[in-house]
Amino acid sequence: MALSVDKTSGGREYKVKDMSQADFGRLEIDLAEVEMPGLMACRTEFGPSQPFKGAKITGSLHMTIQTAVLIETLTALGAEVRWCSCNIFSTQDHAAAVIARDSASVFAWKGETLQEYWWCTEKSLDWGAGGGPDLIVDDGGDVTMLIHEGVKAEEAYEKTGKVPDPTSSDNAEFQIVLTIIKDGLTANPKKYTKMKERLVGVSEETTTGVKRLYQMQANGTLLFPAINVNDSVTKSKFDNLYGCRHSLPDGLMRATDVMIAGKVAVVCGYGDVGKGCASALKQAGARVIVTEIDPICALQALMEGLQVLTLEDVLSTADIFVTTTGNKDIIMVDHMKKMKNNAIVCNIGHFDNEIDMLGLENYPGVKRITIKPQTDRWVFPDTKTGIIVLAEGRLMNLGCATGHPSFVMSCSFTNQVIAQLELWKEKSTGKYEKKVYVLPKHLDEKVASLHLGKLGAKLTKLTKDQADYISVPIEGPYKPPNYRY
Amino acid sequence: MALSVDKTSGGREYKVKDMSQADFGRLEIDLAEVEMPGLMACRTEFGPSQPFKGAKITGSLHMTIQTAVLIETLTALGAEVRWCSCNIFSTQDHAAAVIARDSASVFAWKGETLQEYWWCTEKSLDWGAGGGPDLIVDDGGDVTMLIHEGVKAEEAYEKTGKVPDPTSSDNAEFQIVLTIIKDGLTANPKKYTKMKERLVGVSEETTTGVKRLYQMQANGTLLFPAINVNDSVTKSKFDNLYGCRHSLPDGLMRATDVMIAGKVAVVCGYGDVGKGCASALKQAGARVIVTEIDPICALQALMEGLQVLTLEDVLSTADIFVTTTGNKDIIMVDHMKKMKNNAIVCNIGHFDNEIDMLGLENYPGVKRITIKPQTDRWVFPDTKTGIIVLAEGRLMNLGCATGHPSFVMSCSFTNQVIAQLELWKEKSTGKYEKKVYVLPKHLDEKVASLHLGKLGAKLTKLTKDQADYISVPIEGPYKPPNYRY
Amino acid sequence: MALSVDKTSGGREYKVKDMSQADFGRLEIDLAEVEMPGLMACRTEFGPSQPFKGAKITGSLHMTIQTAVLIETLTALGAEVRWCSCNIFSTQDHAAAVIARDSASVFAWKGETLQEYWWCTEKSLDWGAGGGPDLIVDDGGDVTMLIHEGVKAEEAYEKTGKVPDPTSSDNAEFQIVLTIIKDGLTANPKKYTKMKERLVGVSEETTTGVKRLYQMQANGTLLFPAINVNDSVTKSKFDNLYGCRHSLPDGLMRATDVMIAGKVAVVCGYGDVGKGCASALKQAGARVIVTEIDPICALQALMEGLQVLTLEDVLSTADIFVTTTGNKDIIMVDHMKKMKNNAIVCNIGHFDNEIDMLGLENYPGVKRITIKPQTDRWVFPDTKTGIIVLAEGRLMNLGCATGHPSFVMSCSFTNQVIAQLELWKEKSTGKYEKKVYVLPKHLDEKVASLHLGKLGAKLTKLTKDQADYISVPIEGPYKPPNYRY
Amino acid sequence: MALSVDKTSGGREYKVKDMSQADFGRLEIDLAEVEMPGLMACRTEFGPSQPFKGAKITGSLHMTIQTAVLIETLTALGAEVRWCSCNIFSTQDHAAAVIARDSASVFAWKGETLQEYWWCTEKSLDWGAGGGPDLIVDDGGDVTMLIHEGVKAEEAYEKTGKVPDPTSSDNAEFQIVLTIIKDGLTANPKKYTKMKERLVGVSEETTTGVKRLYQMQANGTLLFPAINVNDSVTKSKFDNLYGCRHSLPDGLMRATDVMIAGKVAVVCGYGDVGKGCASALKQAGARVIVTEIDPICALQALMEGLQVLTLEDVLSTADIFVTTTGNKDIIMVDHMKKMKNNAIVCNIGHFDNEIDMLGLENYPGVKRITIKPQTDRWVFPDTKTGIIVLAEGRLMNLGCATGHPSFVMSCSFTNQVIAQLELWKEKSTGKYEKKVYVLPKHLDEKVASLHLGKLGAKLTKLTKDQADYISVPIEGPYKPPNYRY
Repeated sequence: MALSVDKTSGGREYKVKDMSQADFGRLEIDLAEVEMPGLMACRTEFGPSQPFKGAKITGSLHMTIQTAVLIETLTALGAEVRWCSCNIFSTQDHAAAVIARDSASVFAWKGETLQEYWWCTEKSLDWGAGGGPDLIVDDGGDVTMLIHEGVKAEEAYEKTGKVPDPTSSDNAEFQIVLTIIKDGLTANPKKYTKMKERLVGVSEETTTGVKRLYQMQANGTLLFPAINVNDSVTKSKFDNLYGCRHSLPDGLMRATDVMIAGKVAVVCGYGDVGKGCASALKQAGARVIVTEIDPICALQALMEGLQVLTLEDVLSTADIFVTTTGNKDIIMVDHMKKMKNNAIVCNIGHFDNEIDMLGLENYPGVKRITIKPQTDRWVFPDTKTGIIVLAEGRLMNLGCATGHPSFVMSCSFTNQVIAQLELWKEKSTGKYEKKVYVLPKHLDEKVASLHLGKLGAKLTKLTKDQADYISVPIEGPYKPPNYRY
Repeated sequence: MALSVDKTSGGREYKVKDMSQADFGRLEIDLAEVEMPGLMACRTEFGPSQPFKGAKITGSLHMTIQTAVLIETLTALGAEVRWCSCNIFSTQDHAAAVIARDSASVFAWKGETLQEYWWCTEKSLDWGAGGGPDLIVDDGGDVTMLIHEGVKAEEAYEKTGKVPDPTSSDNAEFQIVLTIIKDGLTANPKKYTKMKERLVGVSEETTTGVKRLYQMQANGTLLFPAINVNDSVTKSKFDNLYGCRHSLPDGLMRATDVMIAGKVAVVCGYGDVGKGCASALKQAGARVIVTEIDPICALQALMEGLQVLTLEDVLSTADIFVTTTGNKDIIMVDHMKKMKNNAIVCNIGHFDNEIDMLGLENYPGVKRITIKPQTDRWVFPDTKTGIIVLAEGRLMNLGCATGHPSFVMSCSFTNQVIAQLELWKEKSTGKYEKKVYVLPKHLDEKVASLHLGKLGAKLTKLTKDQADYISVPIEGPYKPPNYRY
Repeated sequence: MALSVDKTSGGREYKVKDMSQADFGRLEIDLAEVEMPGLMACRTEFGPSQPFKGAKITGSLHMTIQTAVLIETLTALGAEVRWCSCNIFSTQDHAAAVIARDSASVFAWKGETLQEYWWCTEKSLDWGAGGGPDLIVDDGGDVTMLIHEGVKAEEAYEKTGKVPDPTSSDNAEFQIVLTIIKDGLTANPKKYTKMKERLVGVSEETTTGVKRLYQMQANGTLLFPAINVNDSVTKSKFDNLYGCRHSLPDGLMRATDVMIAGKVAVVCGYGDVGKGCASALKQAGARVIVTEIDPICALQALMEGLQVLTLEDVLSTADIFVTTTGNKDIIMVDHMKKMKNNAIVCNIGHFDNEIDMLGLENYPGVKRITIKPQTDRWVFPDTKTGIIVLAEGRLMNLGCATGHPSFVMSCSFTNQVIAQLELWKEKSTGKYEKKVYVLPKHLDEKVASLHLGKLGAKLTKLTKDQADYISVPIEGPYKPPNYRY
Repeated sequence: MALSVDKTSGGREYKVKDMSQADFGRLEIDLAEVEMPGLMACRTEFGPSQPFKGAKITGSLHMTIQTAVLIETLTALGAEVRWCSCNIFSTQDHAAAVIARDSASVFAWKGETLQEYWWCTEKSLDWGAGGGPDLIVDDGGDVTMLIHEGVKAEEAYEKTGKVPDPTSSDNAEFQIVLTIIKDGLTANPKKYTKMKERLVGVSEETTTGVKRLYQMQANGTLLFPAINVNDSVTKSKFDNLYGCRHSLPDGLMRATDVMIAGKVAVVCGYGDVGKGCASALKQAGARVIVTEIDPICALQALMEGLQVLTLEDVLSTADIFVTTTGNKDIIMVDHMKKMKNNAIVCNIGHFDNEIDMLGLENYPGVKRITIKPQTDRWVFPDTKTGIIVLAEGRLMNLGCATGHPSFVMSCSFTNQVIAQLELWKEKSTGKYEKKVYVLPKHLDEKVASLHLGKLGAKLTKLTKDQADYISVPIEGPYKPPNYRY
């Protein structure tokens, strides 16, 4: 795509693939709203008071239909919003189109190059002369990372006059980040510094981003308050678990139409994501084998009747390999060479480095045959057998299907709205320091409450006597903070 | 589409949507072949002897990638083939294209009108001057029905000089059938009579078609031998059960992206198809309610923890309705009016008359909003609430997804190949009369055998002593004919 | 036990372990009646007309609480009953006591020797001077076999004057049978011949007995009509499947308290019994491996995510072994030697020869340690490791637990009552020849119907139009005879 | 039982039901040891150094076979042990006998009265002249509570000369506790005070006991350090969840033989225990309905396809009711009156006050029919219908079956051993204050590790590079403290 910004007739900036898909996007948003009771309840409860009045929010999070409902909840509460996707394949172009047309500045399309990805990210932060953003919604922490790297470079530049050297990294993507920073540095040497000074805080969506935040907190380098939305129970125990249980088979089916029943499936990692994946595959009739480093999670897998082995043990017998670890270098090219013909390899963790795509691409004589977008067969020259890699090693549920379904994302995104509201409300009170926070238990329980009615559930009420007996308030919260659910 | 026949450079007739998708079709066929060990084993075993040499086969069966592998197995064994789809939405256009280009005459595209559908059916029977077909592969019995109706009309015409009167039926589709017959009758008054005289037999794929055949056998009107492939164990207990267990959620997800977990799902009918659907929905976290007329099937549902109620009991509380009955008038427009907003209504039985589409279309003031092809929201004027109907009431797994996966279709289609081989081999022996037959048990067991290796299974062998003890041959068949599996 | 017959104050013969348990038996019968709606409905429907008036029924079927409800249903309908158990470990002594006290002549106790077992069987056939029985309820066919062997011996004796030679068989149990026949032969040389002449017929409960009957029918040696109750859908697809799904884990838990989750369990045979067992073990968190000779059943196992291997493949890794085959020589002593320490070996098929108990007992130096009744640890001298054998290789669900639960037995036993009624009603009509019959579909459906209300189910009714469309009567039967459910 | 202390020939005190069951107990211990790899590994690792040399440990924890292996692990590490059960029905008499004979002072039998229960508890604390205990293993906190109440009474007595007034409580059991304290007070007015001064600490097994401890910590009344074993992941997420998944159906089957498939089961509470119960019931074919106060847990239930309603909604339709809450007054007599005939009511939470046994016993005209020990039918005079109450409202898995299986108890009890070792090692270092502690993550992971080999699992090892990438040590711990598993 030509990297130039478009404008709506009303003057709002955007860059999307195909504006003509906006009507289709609106129809799907209409459906999704019925499935997202938490977000709709936020509009009802908070909409009238316009709590986000004056707030400029930048979001970097898969630009899907569900995210569209999130964005329109933020704008319904008074915010001005700019958005990009946090994954090159995860945008739904009709979702991007309708938001760009109706609600917010969007820079996102399915199938961005890395260069385009970071251009979009930068645009989502470019609030023009008035400055901004005030708040960030982040997923994986790329926006947060860009600002931190930007500030670091600006401080170094101020001190030493040196600009970042992209060749100092051997990571191709990080070279792009450094180039972006470098290219803007001399013209606007305080860009990121001003940004972080204005910033009220970030709410982070996912395990990987949260891990980065805690590292920065530990190192003392975190530049603004952060709310860890991922570790709300109604996020990590729902979206990660039930979301993946839904979207892993969805992605497999759409990408390959392969029959799951009867197959041997390997799930690398048995955290919440791995648990959801293993459950889905087992239910569909696969024989599931788990790889784990953590003995507790391994024992959980065993209690569910799953075999726990190492990847090496199953290379030649398994049909489907799924990485869910959040770590890197899980399935290497040397592993892939030993797999059965047409073994399926995919990732539903976070970054694409769970699978050694670089090693695969550089394997001498390897041949890539694109079956359809996001479904590639890679044939090894020695064996003439091929493996099928989904979404180029990136999140297969977003690359090959449509990500998590609306209902479970309503839980996650209601946490996001509540986190953003909390940050904004307390922007001047000093309640939040440059640390990482989780939402209090009663808000977590509230998010759950907002989703019960849609499913026809009726809660039991404690009597005063019972509440006293177990020492909790009648209205909750009901569990100690460390309760594991 | 303009209803004219195209020709390949080699002169083979076809009519498909987009010939440029042929390469994509070939890539998917390559993948499917690895998943269809039964068909590939047939090519290895029978290919060299070319048993179908001289046989002209007409098929009417969903023109998908899996069917493409079936067709190319038939041609690899020496047959000449003409094909149409047995459902207006079930063709995969890339599959049709590649077969048309490389292997057989195909008349099929996704989204035919009923007029087009019967034009395609007629073309698949039009073998030109040389006459034909010799054999029929049928799914649902439309080709068989057309020939029987044709013969009936020709006999009446010969006796009385009268042509069929399309207005004598109030079924719109049957009017088209009668019109087709009527239109050709005076020009070619022995067309279907010659066809039935030449015909060696038909092999029928599905419950609905088989039911029609047994009715004709009972009435003494069956015009040629028929092999009931549906009731091979390796067909009905696999394709119907495990196929639907796979393709029902696939269709739901692709059409609506709805989260299945937490929803109330109603499965109308608890035969093999219903069992597969209920299992899939339960596994995905839905609460499943079954409706049944048969007390035995109802008790089976209860034993699996499913509630058995009538449709009326659950209209206002269920989220998803699936018909699997093979009967008609299961979900009527009066039912649909009482459903929750955005309740999903779909059919995975056989014909679209399980759902009262006619009643819905004719409901005064009803508004149809097409979200995307095969996904329509119908809004009732009184309540302003809508329901979502998939694939216009036709088979949702074929209309909204890609049908059953290759592996399970390999079981079904290997039965087809074996049935066709059997009919052709015995064409002159009189072994098969104008009756309906099922394949013998040892062939059924053979089909299963051909699929074990791919899944890494190892069978146990009986000793002579053990075989004698249970009075079976060491090599099988192992079960009495009425064994239920 | 001293093998002498006791008498109630009213003069009814019996032999049970402990008459003081009769009250406890009555309490459990009271509970069971609530769970056996089919039998209770029979009492309501048929009790008033006393259809069994004058009928003498001998039963050989596990003397449990559920059987007690069956017996009291037969007597409530007018029959006179004598009963023995069909398995040396399956009697529940409180059930035997209460029936002996209140309702029928019972000869059964838990833990009979084989000698005692056949004494009881003979007593159950001993109707004294008046002669009898008129009808037989059989399970496994031991009574039927005894009569057939008796007749054979009497015919030989008449012709040749020779009595049977027990040493002609190398099967210890069959030697006992021959001895019994021999011992009575000279005194009463027409005993069994008179019996078979009077006999109206037998209804047989289980797969193994049915197999014997069909063999006799094939050989032309069957001496009286037989109804195959086992192959009623409401028997074999319920009792075998759901009954074992319940009672296999029950037996394992009571016998060993072993945690099933995490264990590797091997199920030999994947028929209805094997399917129930595999399902129960998988649900409880075991990793289940199936052994099979039949490729169709093997493919079914694979579709459920179960691995299919041979016994040899898993001897050293599995924790639990269950035989369900109805065949013999499944687990031999050479297999047992190679198992892990404390591997559990048990049988839920039919006869104890599925497990090589003889080989085990005779293994040089083997040591048997009885943990508690029916739970033995056998230690091999070479390895010092032991295996745990349940119920001495006999049916572990009856030996170690209480067999199938009442509700599922109500289905089976309602079939028995209906079969007995049918035989008795047609005793003089010649409707039933010396062949094996199954109950007609509408009676099978009736049995199911009688069990729906208890579970709160509501059936859907066909309209006339729908019934015509699928060509079935509105009131059923709904399925063709070969339908597999 | 006569409440007098017996002595072994070696002079060790005990009171058990039947010393002749000791051999049977030893056989079952032999089996259990194979299933308890964590405890056996502790013996191997720590046995040689005798770390508990000099330690006097009092335990109050279900005196089962598994506990016997725990006790013999403590003594193998050098401890001297006195033990009582923490539930009047949970003792296995053969386990008590063998421990009394071979290893420790035991005061426990199945079916204690409350009077006897507290006598046993007192005896387990009576170390004679030398004083003691040094350490406590508690389950539910009764020993801890007794000491705290004792100290309170002694302080009051010292100040005011007043002894406790049992009639000051309207709780019958607490009256007994006060009576015990009162009765000993004048004779030994510093008994509990000396005890608490000597006490190094307590390790508490279960949710209910832990809740009491945190309350005392919050109130500042906790008299000695406590380790919360319950909240080790390898305890609460294993024992509570997988243990109950095993032992709930075990208890139901042994007590009632009821068929679970097809029934409607209500699980009150969806914490770890409730999750295990609901899973077991669903797997066995029941339709499960959950009651909950906590919206998060309720939403989890919904995601598994379970219905969430209030108890009132299902009183007349459900067949089985299970309380798992840890709260009181869950099922009241007014609820029970409205249930179906022979509805089963049982508790697997902690205390028997989850079910209103007092209300039931005092209901005018109610009739109790004991089917067998721990299985009572209570008939209401008005309706003549009865309900079946298991274990008199106490823990049904221990009262009606044998509690959790060895393998999962090995996880829990390995945590206990490690906790006791830690308290004893640090007895003089001041590391542990009068607070409640959980074990550090690496010990929790170690417990899991010790259980993997038995199940044939192989862990994956992190590379240095991977460990750095996710910022954990190669050898763990792998998760942050608040990780939920």
